[in-house]
Amino acid sequence: MNPLLSSEIRVINIGLKSFSEPIRAHGGTALDLEWRPPAEGNSQAGMALAELINHPQVNAANQTAYERYLSAQPVLVGLGVARDELPGFGARTLLHSGPPISWSAMCGPQKGAVLGAILYEGWAKTLGEAEALVVGGGVNLDACNHHNAVGPMAGVISPSMPVWIVENTTNGHRSYCNLNEGLGKVLRFGANSPEVLERLVWMRDVLAPTLKVILASLGPVALKPLMAQALHMGDEVHNRNAAASALFFKKLTLAALGELPSLDLQKVRETLAFVASNDHFFLNLSMAACKGMLQAAEGVKNSTLVTVMARNGVDFGIQLSGLPGQWFTAPANFIEGLYFSGYSRDDAARDLGDSAITETAGLGGFSMAASPAIVQFVGGTPADAIANTRRMLHITLGQNAAFTLPPLDFGGCPAGIDARKVVDTSILPVINTGIAHQQAGIGQIGAGITNAPLACFVQALEALALKGVQ
Amino acid sequence: MNPLLSSEIRVINIGLKSFSEPIRAHGGTALDLEWRPPAEGNSQAGMALAELINHPQVNAANQTAYERYLSAQPVLVGLGVARDELPGFGARTLLHSGPPISWSAMCGPQKGAVLGAILYEGWAKTLGEAEALVVGGGVNLDACNHHNAVGPMAGVISPSMPVWIVENTTNGHRSYCNLNEGLGKVLRFGANSPEVLERLVWMRDVLAPTLKVILASLGPVALKPLMAQALHMGDEVHNRNAAASALFFKKLTLAALGELPSLDLQKVRETLAFVASNDHFFLNLSMAACKGMLQAAEGVKNSTLVTVMARNGVDFGIQLSGLPGQWFTAPANFIEGLYFSGYSRDDAARDLGDSAITETAGLGGFSMAASPAIVQFVGGTPADAIANTRRMLHITLGQNAAFTLPPLDFGGCPAGIDARKVVDTSILPVINTGIAHQQAGIGQIGAGITNAPLACFVQALEALALKGVQ
Repeated sequence: MNPLLSSEIRVINIGLKSFSEPIRAHGGTALDLEWRPPAEGNSQAGMALAELINHPQVNAANQTAYERYLSAQPVLVGLGVARDELPGFGARTLLHSGPPISWSAMCGPQKGAVLGAILYEGWAKTLGEAEALVVGGGVNLDACNHHNAVGPMAGVISPSMPVWIVENTTNGHRSYCNLNEGLGKVLRFGANSPEVLERLVWMRDVLAPTLKVILASLGPVALKPLMAQALHMGDEVHNRNAAASALFFKKLTLAALGELPSLDLQKVRETLAFVASNDHFFLNLSMAACKGMLQAAEGVKNSTLVTVMARNGVDFGIQLSGLPGQWFTAPANFIEGLYFSGYSRDDAARDLGDSAITETAGLGGFSMAASPAIVQFVGGTPADAIANTRRMLHITLGQNAAFTLPPLDFGGCPAGIDARKVVDTSILPVINTGIAHQQAGIGQIGAGITNAPLACFVQALEALALKGVQ
Repeated sequence: MNPLLSSEIRVINIGLKSFSEPIRAHGGTALDLEWRPPAEGNSQAGMALAELINHPQVNAANQTAYERYLSAQPVLVGLGVARDELPGFGARTLLHSGPPISWSAMCGPQKGAVLGAILYEGWAKTLGEAEALVVGGGVNLDACNHHNAVGPMAGVISPSMPVWIVENTTNGHRSYCNLNEGLGKVLRFGANSPEVLERLVWMRDVLAPTLKVILASLGPVALKPLMAQALHMGDEVHNRNAAASALFFKKLTLAALGELPSLDLQKVRETLAFVASNDHFFLNLSMAACKGMLQAAEGVKNSTLVTVMARNGVDFGIQLSGLPGQWFTAPANFIEGLYFSGYSRDDAARDLGDSAITETAGLGGFSMAASPAIVQFVGGTPADAIANTRRMLHITLGQNAAFTLPPLDFGGCPAGIDARKVVDTSILPVINTGIAHQQAGIGQIGAGITNAPLACFVQALEALALKGVQ
């Protein structure tokens, strides 16, 4: 039928899908309205939502929290050792990603990373001894997020590991992340072979002391402008950090050359070659910066702004600004993605790592529109990338003008996840992420895209409604 | 009127635009078909076009030329001195951009650059003496393109200037470009003050010798993969080279560190700081690489593939593969763009420089879709950038799979301009470019977008038709 000549029947159907079929069968057009009840029809959640959704005090609290997030200025101020820098870092402690979890409940790659870290710290000589130690309760396990820190994937931070120190200049608070090891066989993906441990030792003994001198020479590095520049160069600063890493490399190089007569040339060579060879090097700085921005928004009474999204490979956990320190968890999802040669979805662990702090801050999957080339790493098409960013506008409090996205006419990234909007729309936060092998000791097997589970947001709203708006 | 319920009149109008008005006045929809006669109705051009448009020998010749362009592998092999490297570089010679032009006909910025180069070479002591020398015929002026070279903007290459040496490994031929000075007050934009000349002397005496050692250590650098990577990082490698420059900087740094005990540390510092501070540093390498790809396509009998587009600020000139060395010129256009503070279109020179070799190779304006952020430098919107690339698909022989554009689903850039298609469609090649002040001695005042003039392509086709397909 020629659409220019027809006067066909065109219908919007708000009823059952089967209502449309006879219309289509007779050559008409019917559009089924896509509508889902809030919280997928969960009535308790619906009541919590009804109480909170247009509550003026919640709206005002969110505005306060959101403005604190917006105005945060995370600055890289140095590099230290985890046990010395992280608040409350106890003896024989290993930090891990996501909400708290016991050894026995941990997924394979997180176990692999814990065992590797025990060997790296010299608390055991073999993987068997290491396992016996942790099974016997000889190691304290705690979440990175309990110590103002974040760690990608398994997220293991051990006492002697070097950490980036980021300070939010608007409140003086600090946030931390470990250093990026590269891709493939690395501790954060659960690998713990001798080459992995040797690299960690080199990072502690050569990379970190060299970077420390370079950073001292460089002075404080404001991270938001660097991330903003990278968004204009095709990064989303979660799974694509090629531009940010190259820009950071430039800064390190110029400072290193200034320090060279006193620094050991061979160590400078090794350090800069390591940074140059790793396009993900900046990820851990992006994470620490995002953690700093969201820490600034924590603890605003009544606020439904999401300040943490983190996964331990078993559970996905979130925190709300209005209920600081309280976790709301649900089973972590699997990941749709692209697998390295020889691996498939059957080999994959569930969603893992604290790196979803980048999405919590409006970057990563939320800023995918800026990063069409990332679909070659995580799957999908450039149109999906733009659609992901646009969809996130429905669950966020605004757009962060510090992080503009060129393909969307330089609009700010969607930022400030409102748990109410997630429950109301059932639109789930999108997350770009690496994929670890489900077994300990293997490492990264791909990268892809997944979602935060709705149940976390439902629980969080219920808890806030139960407490009551005050 | 509700479009879902209407049975309105919808018309495609192939006649006069006024035919549509009564239809619209009565609530109908009318689409005016946009059609223009080939060559804007020029009947002589129409006859040349009619002879060539579907000629099987021209088609075959274009396929041959296009494949030579596609298969070229330009590789940076070193850095030399212009008088030693460029073929046929005579005594007391200065090269300039665009088609050949006499001193008296030159635009202000090109005159400024010629006078500056005379001072730089020590052939005169003052601008007055320099002008007397060139007016008196004491300097040979010739086009860069006559010596396998290209120069951005004024494009002045003087005998003692350092030049990049690029070799196409598929035929062993070399192409050349001078080194990028940065933005603002620089010789290529017509500035010639003492600071400009001092920078040129430093580039000759410190930068070039240092880079020469670094490049020798680095070994040959394949340029197409680097440019391809930059297209995935938001460059179009003409007016945006932030990513390509950062990637090239990484390579230089690692090689420099390897040579450091023998290289002077202070010179390495100055060299790398200069490269790091200039996001356009890679432009001149991109230009030499593009020149190499198009040289490979030169001299295929009967081919209407465009192998050169170059401007001297007065005339725009092109060359065809099938008529090598022959220029077809028309007045250069003015530029729509963004001006630096304090300047306007009234201050601007016409389109200037050999850098349109990047568009001739499918990059720059032709690959703008990959570079949404560039619109902040040259004007327009990201949608315009995508539309520019799509429009160029109508006048090119194909898409170069070596240069994929992420926002267009990783399709290759439109490449291989067919002069027949330009004349047939009146779609003009789009060019991103810097804007020089129209007076000598001032420098860059903005950047923008312009087009190649149709008349060049008409003349070229007429010349080929007159010669006859052989």
